[in-house]
Amino acid sequence: MIKAGILGASGYTGARLALHLARHRDVEIAFATSRKDKGRSMSDLYGALGNVCDIELIEPSEAEKIDIDVLFTCAPDQTSMKVVPGYLKRGVSIVDLAGDYRMDSEESYEEWYGAPHESPEYLEQKVFGLTELYRDKIAGTRLLSNPGCYPTSVILGIAPLVEAGLVQCDDIFVSSVSGISGAGKGLSEFKLFYEADSNVLPYKHGRAHKHTGEMEQELSKIAGTSCRVVFAPHVVPMKTGIVSTIRLSMKEKMCRDDVMALYRERYDSEFFVRVHENGLPNSKYVADTNFCDIGFSIAEDTDTLIVVSTICNLGKGASGQAVQNMNVMFGFDEKEGLL
Amino acid sequence: MIKAGILGASGYTGARLALHLARHRDVEIAFATSRKDKGRSMSDLYGALGNVCDIELIEPSEAEKIDIDVLFTCAPDQTSMKVVPGYLKRGVSIVDLAGDYRMDSEESYEEWYGAPHESPEYLEQKVFGLTELYRDKIAGTRLLSNPGCYPTSVILGIAPLVEAGLVQCDDIFVSSVSGISGAGKGLSEFKLFYEADSNVLPYKHGRAHKHTGEMEQELSKIAGTSCRVVFAPHVVPMKTGIVSTIRLSMKEKMCRDDVMALYRERYDSEFFVRVHENGLPNSKYVADTNFCDIGFSIAEDTDTLIVVSTICNLGKGASGQAVQNMNVMFGFDEKEGLL
Amino acid sequence: MIKAGILGASGYTGARLALHLARHRDVEIAFATSRKDKGRSMSDLYGALGNVCDIELIEPSEAEKIDIDVLFTCAPDQTSMKVVPGYLKRGVSIVDLAGDYRMDSEESYEEWYGAPHESPEYLEQKVFGLTELYRDKIAGTRLLSNPGCYPTSVILGIAPLVEAGLVQCDDIFVSSVSGISGAGKGLSEFKLFYEADSNVLPYKHGRAHKHTGEMEQELSKIAGTSCRVVFAPHVVPMKTGIVSTIRLSMKEKMCRDDVMALYRERYDSEFFVRVHENGLPNSKYVADTNFCDIGFSIAEDTDTLIVVSTICNLGKGASGQAVQNMNVMFGFDEKEGLL
Amino acid sequence: MIKAGILGASGYTGARLALHLARHRDVEIAFATSRKDKGRSMSDLYGALGNVCDIELIEPSEAEKIDIDVLFTCAPDQTSMKVVPGYLKRGVSIVDLAGDYRMDSEESYEEWYGAPHESPEYLEQKVFGLTELYRDKIAGTRLLSNPGCYPTSVILGIAPLVEAGLVQCDDIFVSSVSGISGAGKGLSEFKLFYEADSNVLPYKHGRAHKHTGEMEQELSKIAGTSCRVVFAPHVVPMKTGIVSTIRLSMKEKMCRDDVMALYRERYDSEFFVRVHENGLPNSKYVADTNFCDIGFSIAEDTDTLIVVSTICNLGKGASGQAVQNMNVMFGFDEKEGLL
Repeated sequence: MIKAGILGASGYTGARLALHLARHRDVEIAFATSRKDKGRSMSDLYGALGNVCDIELIEPSEAEKIDIDVLFTCAPDQTSMKVVPGYLKRGVSIVDLAGDYRMDSEESYEEWYGAPHESPEYLEQKVFGLTELYRDKIAGTRLLSNPGCYPTSVILGIAPLVEAGLVQCDDIFVSSVSGISGAGKGLSEFKLFYEADSNVLPYKHGRAHKHTGEMEQELSKIAGTSCRVVFAPHVVPMKTGIVSTIRLSMKEKMCRDDVMALYRERYDSEFFVRVHENGLPNSKYVADTNFCDIGFSIAEDTDTLIVVSTICNLGKGASGQAVQNMNVMFGFDEKEGLL
Repeated sequence: MIKAGILGASGYTGARLALHLARHRDVEIAFATSRKDKGRSMSDLYGALGNVCDIELIEPSEAEKIDIDVLFTCAPDQTSMKVVPGYLKRGVSIVDLAGDYRMDSEESYEEWYGAPHESPEYLEQKVFGLTELYRDKIAGTRLLSNPGCYPTSVILGIAPLVEAGLVQCDDIFVSSVSGISGAGKGLSEFKLFYEADSNVLPYKHGRAHKHTGEMEQELSKIAGTSCRVVFAPHVVPMKTGIVSTIRLSMKEKMCRDDVMALYRERYDSEFFVRVHENGLPNSKYVADTNFCDIGFSIAEDTDTLIVVSTICNLGKGASGQAVQNMNVMFGFDEKEGLL
Repeated sequence: MIKAGILGASGYTGARLALHLARHRDVEIAFATSRKDKGRSMSDLYGALGNVCDIELIEPSEAEKIDIDVLFTCAPDQTSMKVVPGYLKRGVSIVDLAGDYRMDSEESYEEWYGAPHESPEYLEQKVFGLTELYRDKIAGTRLLSNPGCYPTSVILGIAPLVEAGLVQCDDIFVSSVSGISGAGKGLSEFKLFYEADSNVLPYKHGRAHKHTGEMEQELSKIAGTSCRVVFAPHVVPMKTGIVSTIRLSMKEKMCRDDVMALYRERYDSEFFVRVHENGLPNSKYVADTNFCDIGFSIAEDTDTLIVVSTICNLGKGASGQAVQNMNVMFGFDEKEGLL
Repeated sequence: MIKAGILGASGYTGARLALHLARHRDVEIAFATSRKDKGRSMSDLYGALGNVCDIELIEPSEAEKIDIDVLFTCAPDQTSMKVVPGYLKRGVSIVDLAGDYRMDSEESYEEWYGAPHESPEYLEQKVFGLTELYRDKIAGTRLLSNPGCYPTSVILGIAPLVEAGLVQCDDIFVSSVSGISGAGKGLSEFKLFYEADSNVLPYKHGRAHKHTGEMEQELSKIAGTSCRVVFAPHVVPMKTGIVSTIRLSMKEKMCRDDVMALYRERYDSEFFVRVHENGLPNSKYVADTNFCDIGFSIAEDTDTLIVVSTICNLGKGASGQAVQNMNVMFGFDEKEGLL
């Protein structure tokens, strides 16, 4: 039984994490912090957690005195870069759900996040936690950077094709839709039910979303060559869920079976990746789970391949994958706490 | 005051049409037909129409005896091709909301609709009813083919760019989301609230959707060269609404102002097309209206232009545009019945 | 053509009012005010109003210089009580959509609204604007207090029974559900899509909601005896709409036909009240309209009568009824602007 | 490890049951039947079950040859009454999720279900499976009748008050709202997303819903006197969830603390019942769980008590409680498979 702390537990990823850890047989939650909601319990904030996770939220400074094996950081960007070094020095393993350690260099961090990094020496050292792609490295690290939600869907969705060198890497177009929890819990008018219900909201089209940089960085490593992504995200009237529809140009003609063979080779032994032999996956297949479901179509008489990859943004796109990564880091069954 | 008939009035387009015509000062509904629901009233089928449109549905054969000036055909595909010739011969003007007369040739009809045409001699004669593009022809026709919902959003969305010859026409990628009414009222499991709520359903990706043919045909005419469209539609949890996100490659570099100037020139005098100077339109702006809202982004450091075009699939994408076209055909105020 | 001003136009009732007035042939909007959003246009706040109502929002103080015939006050409670007297003295007719003048006495205002009234001399003078019940008085007033949304549904729903003296007036139980727009546009966590979707939220059960007082006051006048209401409101995942389910005890046995006869007598000539002969009305029948739909059941072997009354809270429950009342006050067709 | 069979597994309760059993460490699913979908797998029907429960659906007749310890019957009413006797004779324990064995006598079954019973000799012998009320009897039975969804919410909600004899039993009014899955998976127009979204649908008001009989029977046993229930159910736009708002008349004055003391005494040791000290529970607290959340209000200056009780209709209202009951019957941890 290991002890886990949650930093910044009052948001949606914190609540989902609390649920997974409450289900987990090998972990107990030692503390959960929230500056804003300290003194309240998790189940006071989230009625669904009553009798499941009633832990009281405390100040981050109080938490520092409590012994833990692993720290999940769910606080806003530019928080974990400040506290992670201290925890690492104390021997605590880190699963960072923020974006602080996702980029590989100080420069690219500043470019995409628009702020200087305060512990850039850890950027190279961290492991990027796409479990299915980097399981071995994850098993050996103490600093795990959990991927962004959109990047998880896109990178898992096309890694086998990019890796095989069979698609144009400088011309990847991604149109994604996301449930509104991706925008977090902070109060903004566009998130009101009256505004968001029965509405599709396109935003940050082009290369304006910071996840574009994360996708390009990671796909480039997989491709072994520089990748260029144009990204068109939209909010749709759902609480959770991401569907990424990815348009690729094939370098040479492939038929459905050729493409499927690549996916099968890569993912057939993966429990949490389900490649659809026929048809395209619905987002409801993965809602509230840690699965990533993938399907694809080849546009008749063209060299265009359209991949659909869907995840739950709070599951595989955040807290689910965080627990999956912790399971790998600590040698637990990878599915523990996640079903 | 003219007299209108509605053929196949029991579906969603029929109900929306009844609402617009009830509001219209120059039209009265002479009959509304439905094989399935004959004997029931429109307001019995649609409670919202109580006291607004209580007309009783009758058999199509009964309707033939009733004198009308214009017939709206909302029946399933392969119905209007059978009855339209008779009505035309009797001097009735036609607004066909089905797909029967959208394609320009018998061959293309068979290719995209998978059935032989029964009155192909009218295919060339019809006018394709995108009001903003073909207003003059519409004013002079008695056979109006009302465009499909997705094509309306896409063609209006990029016509100024395609016409100006500034984008690659052989590489148009469209990712659309649609509310579920686009699939009609027939009972299917995927349309159940339990299945469709909180769900995104991708379908017919590639060139499998018949609207692909309609888009290619019409865009090719506007471009003066052959256009190729790859199309990725999705159903999202809304009753109505379409957002088409269209990826275009610019032939030469254009800045935001260049593109905006093209849109302004084309649409500034159009009441029902609203081009957004800044930001991207939400689908709720056009819900239950006859508007088409358009916005765009240029992806930094690339030649990619992303256009967003949104309509109400039952409004500008069907019954709204049908009434707008009737208004043009009969010389009424184009907005009458539509606000 | 009369001139209308809207005070506090930036909220949901203001936007709905702008839509109805834009459709209205006898009214033009002379001004619309908003402290918070002055300088922005209505269509900037509500994309749906583009080309329909682009009027720029101004400061209330600026508005005072502009000549109008009627003022709609949509500002928060405790605002109109301050400004209405001035407008009345200038000869402007008032339609107050806030609660300021709904109660009949200073004491009852303080009891239910928890604040002192600043122009209590007008409380007796105002006319309570349930159009179907008080049409004659409305025609003759210059100070119209538009009813609350829940009270509109409940009072219209049971007025014929209460008036006839056939139900127990001291034991009226109302369980209502409302779409979330009833709570206004202000930012609160419970209104977020993530919180409100797929959720039913009971609140202020018992006699805690101020609309309880309004119902009791008005029902008592209709009954000619003191009425007692216990009220259980709930928010359900819809943008708009109220369904009030009202449990009544019949004083003496009545059959379905007896009850229906009372409703018919009262409402058969009313365009905006639809009594359902069979079955119970759905809230979608009245969504975005000015209708009130009513149905009822008699519980077998008991003296319990259950009435269901549904309205759109922004329509008949606010801006629709406000325009209907203005139509009566100015002698326009009662339906003008409302279809 | 025991072996479970699911009869009629293709519906929503079957799917939820499969999920709980897949999570359960002491049960394996030996078979799942479906006449309509035989040959397909559970995960083919429900994409969410991929890799979680891929069992192939078989004919009920095939299933009879397979050895099991417990049978869950999820088939439509009037099915389990035919097959349960055979399974019981073979020594199989039964958890019947249909209504077949809920009534205590042949007469009351016919009265409320409108059909003759085919194995009435088991009606007295069965145990009614409200776990918190009948845990001891449940532990000792082999024929468990799982309660209806509405009755579960209502009976748990008011049992402590009814049992204490402190409320009028002949005058219980229940207004409930339910998510649409309560109506099952069969195709009907009212269940379509287009019809059900943004809509509240009242139905079977009075004493027309068969669950009224179940509530009266069970409450009467708890009260020790005949109870009379008037019931007003509504469908609201959610996939799952029930909120029952129950109006009671107190026989003598009680304050909040008095009432709370009764609830505490009854439920403080119950994991799956959460009584809210302050405020009223939201339905989202219990969505997709086996919890029942209860809150109440006393209407000021009246003898009216309003109880709110909320459950997930597929969880505590069906498959969750079924698994909880199985856990009691087989001596497993009561929470196993349910978190």
